[in-house]
Amino acid sequence: MTTSADAIWSLLIAVRERQPLVHNITNFVVMNNTANALLALGASPAMVHSCDEVEDFVSLSQALVVNIGTLYSEQIAACRLAAMRARAAGVPWILDPVGAGATPYRRAAAGALARLRPNVIRGNGSEILTLARQASEGRGVDSLQGSETAVDAARTLAAETGAVVAVTGAVDYVTDGTQVAAIANGHPLMTRVTGLGCSATAIIGAFLAVERDPLVATVAGLAVFGVAGEIAAGRAAGPGSLQVALLDALYAMTQSDLAQRLKLEKG
Amino acid sequence: MTTSADAIWSLLIAVRERQPLVHNITNFVVMNNTANALLALGASPAMVHSCDEVEDFVSLSQALVVNIGTLYSEQIAACRLAAMRARAAGVPWILDPVGAGATPYRRAAAGALARLRPNVIRGNGSEILTLARQASEGRGVDSLQGSETAVDAARTLAAETGAVVAVTGAVDYVTDGTQVAAIANGHPLMTRVTGLGCSATAIIGAFLAVERDPLVATVAGLAVFGVAGEIAAGRAAGPGSLQVALLDALYAMTQSDLAQRLKLEKG
Amino acid sequence: MTTSADAIWSLLIAVRERQPLVHNITNFVVMNNTANALLALGASPAMVHSCDEVEDFVSLSQALVVNIGTLYSEQIAACRLAAMRARAAGVPWILDPVGAGATPYRRAAAGALARLRPNVIRGNGSEILTLARQASEGRGVDSLQGSETAVDAARTLAAETGAVVAVTGAVDYVTDGTQVAAIANGHPLMTRVTGLGCSATAIIGAFLAVERDPLVATVAGLAVFGVAGEIAAGRAAGPGSLQVALLDALYAMTQSDLAQRLKLEKG
Repeated sequence: MTTSADAIWSLLIAVRERQPLVHNITNFVVMNNTANALLALGASPAMVHSCDEVEDFVSLSQALVVNIGTLYSEQIAACRLAAMRARAAGVPWILDPVGAGATPYRRAAAGALARLRPNVIRGNGSEILTLARQASEGRGVDSLQGSETAVDAARTLAAETGAVVAVTGAVDYVTDGTQVAAIANGHPLMTRVTGLGCSATAIIGAFLAVERDPLVATVAGLAVFGVAGEIAAGRAAGPGSLQVALLDALYAMTQSDLAQRLKLEKG
Repeated sequence: MTTSADAIWSLLIAVRERQPLVHNITNFVVMNNTANALLALGASPAMVHSCDEVEDFVSLSQALVVNIGTLYSEQIAACRLAAMRARAAGVPWILDPVGAGATPYRRAAAGALARLRPNVIRGNGSEILTLARQASEGRGVDSLQGSETAVDAARTLAAETGAVVAVTGAVDYVTDGTQVAAIANGHPLMTRVTGLGCSATAIIGAFLAVERDPLVATVAGLAVFGVAGEIAAGRAAGPGSLQVALLDALYAMTQSDLAQRLKLEKG
Repeated sequence: MTTSADAIWSLLIAVRERQPLVHNITNFVVMNNTANALLALGASPAMVHSCDEVEDFVSLSQALVVNIGTLYSEQIAACRLAAMRARAAGVPWILDPVGAGATPYRRAAAGALARLRPNVIRGNGSEILTLARQASEGRGVDSLQGSETAVDAARTLAAETGAVVAVTGAVDYVTDGTQVAAIANGHPLMTRVTGLGCSATAIIGAFLAVERDPLVATVAGLAVFGVAGEIAAGRAAGPGSLQVALLDALYAMTQSDLAQRLKLEKG
């Protein structure tokens, strides 16, 4: 992997110029913020979730984002239909397995979607640990704990599903099962705004639309989002103003913002 | 049509004083923003979409807003029930055919609602072109393209449906099939915030509650919203702060703001 | 009741330290804002509403918030399942009967939930009057009107349901049927932002997770929220910036903010 601040900047320019249509099937908490994050970045978001049209809509799109935050039965069906159509049509897609471990219902839904061959899976440590346990049942992944072990779980999950896997937190780790990149951007105040993980997933979706190597697209998306979060935190008096400043920062990001702030380590 | 800055100001005062109850059946992306735009303007919004109560609720309301953004089957039924009750009860209603041309499902739903005699239809150029094609099938509207031709499509759609039709964009055009008014307010940054078209539709809904000539109400709504957007853009560092400043500008708009900024041309 | 600014401050510290998981079944208009209000306060929100998992999720939570804003049939079932599980598992829960009197559907749903023994009910004057009329049918509560009589209705409703009842407005009243506390914090501009009543309900939910006397928890929640609203109004140019500043104020509230601004009268 040869990702650098310059390469990431080129991809951001590509998003701004091509304005890719990013189809989101996402939760009701973050729909507005996710759409606004994509617009601020330069992409063209659409929120479409009815089983009656998701397949048609995927076919028009340059990327698909599937997020199970506020799950219900028709939405699971819509996510499955959209994911299968995305694979068939060559549209890259990313899975955000929100709260995967919280209930049996959620665990089953997340596991079934992970088996539909997403190009990328992004979650926090617990979510990735839950999915990795399911993917490698009986192989002792249950003993994993903490952040470093979430990286091992991410490798396992990547190997089992064929997806690039991102575990986000204070440091974000991205792996294809072999290589691991680490991004140390972002700010702790971001955890006090709802749905910024979901926004990060959608931003990666926009980069998947312009960069077919999912490892590079994921690193680029998390880097841009983390840098925007840092800039925003520097201007914010709390989580309310952070959310506003984050959209402004995504919109106004310059090449030197990215070059000066990027903290990317290749594994 | 004799709409002027003074006449629009009088209608804004009427909204602020009467606080009309505006019933919205709208999409999940913009519910919060739409409610906040109506509150900032001075109206009283309600978001009610269950088939079990939409008819009762329309009867209590002074206007109805129907928006098909995040469509699903029960919502189509709710929209139809509410629209029919609105016609029967003399409650003015406005249709926002979001993404009308994107999928067959959406095209069918938008077309069916347009036939239920809305007082106003507001859309962007593609949406109005799609609806006009359906309304005048076989008459060659398919050859229409671009912004000036969207105005012709709007005239056709107005003539076919009996609705006042607004095509919004850099310039907003409003027609009853004969007269055409053009409003050149607003700001390009508004396209980087999700759902501002939906907010414009809801604002027109509030004006329909205090002014029964739908051409005048639509011009007033778009003028007030465009002026607020301009004021907000002057204070914003990007799309995040624009959205916040827009609500503040709607709330604080003065007669001289409107008089100095209004760019209204009658057709 | 011995609630003081010091006691309320101690409870706020407890929320910040323990970060209780607050399960919300709430309406689509306010999901994002409610989650952000809880995060800014220091709690850990979850928005989970499918009948397939609400019972499992309640069992993991320290409090449950049930809000009927955008009602539909599956949600009523989910609210009932969650409320019954909360009672069985000893998880405190609060009911927000949004628009209880507007339609027969809504009146029936609110009434049925009030009979499932919520620990707290919070509403505006009309909502509490509607519920009190149902609870004491035939006993003349129909003649009640206005704010002072809403307090009488709140006492009646508290006595009939066993819940602590809060009627919020310019002054918030909280009663267990016998004692009445009055909180005179907040600001009129708060009525121009959608869903701040819903946020207040969720904030009370967070306090129920750390204080088992529902009268004390409710007073604490409304006091903290009202003080945050006052601080925010002092920094806001309108309802857009108020909403942003309110989250910042909840996050940054100090002991002296609370001590200097609290306007609490015990009945």
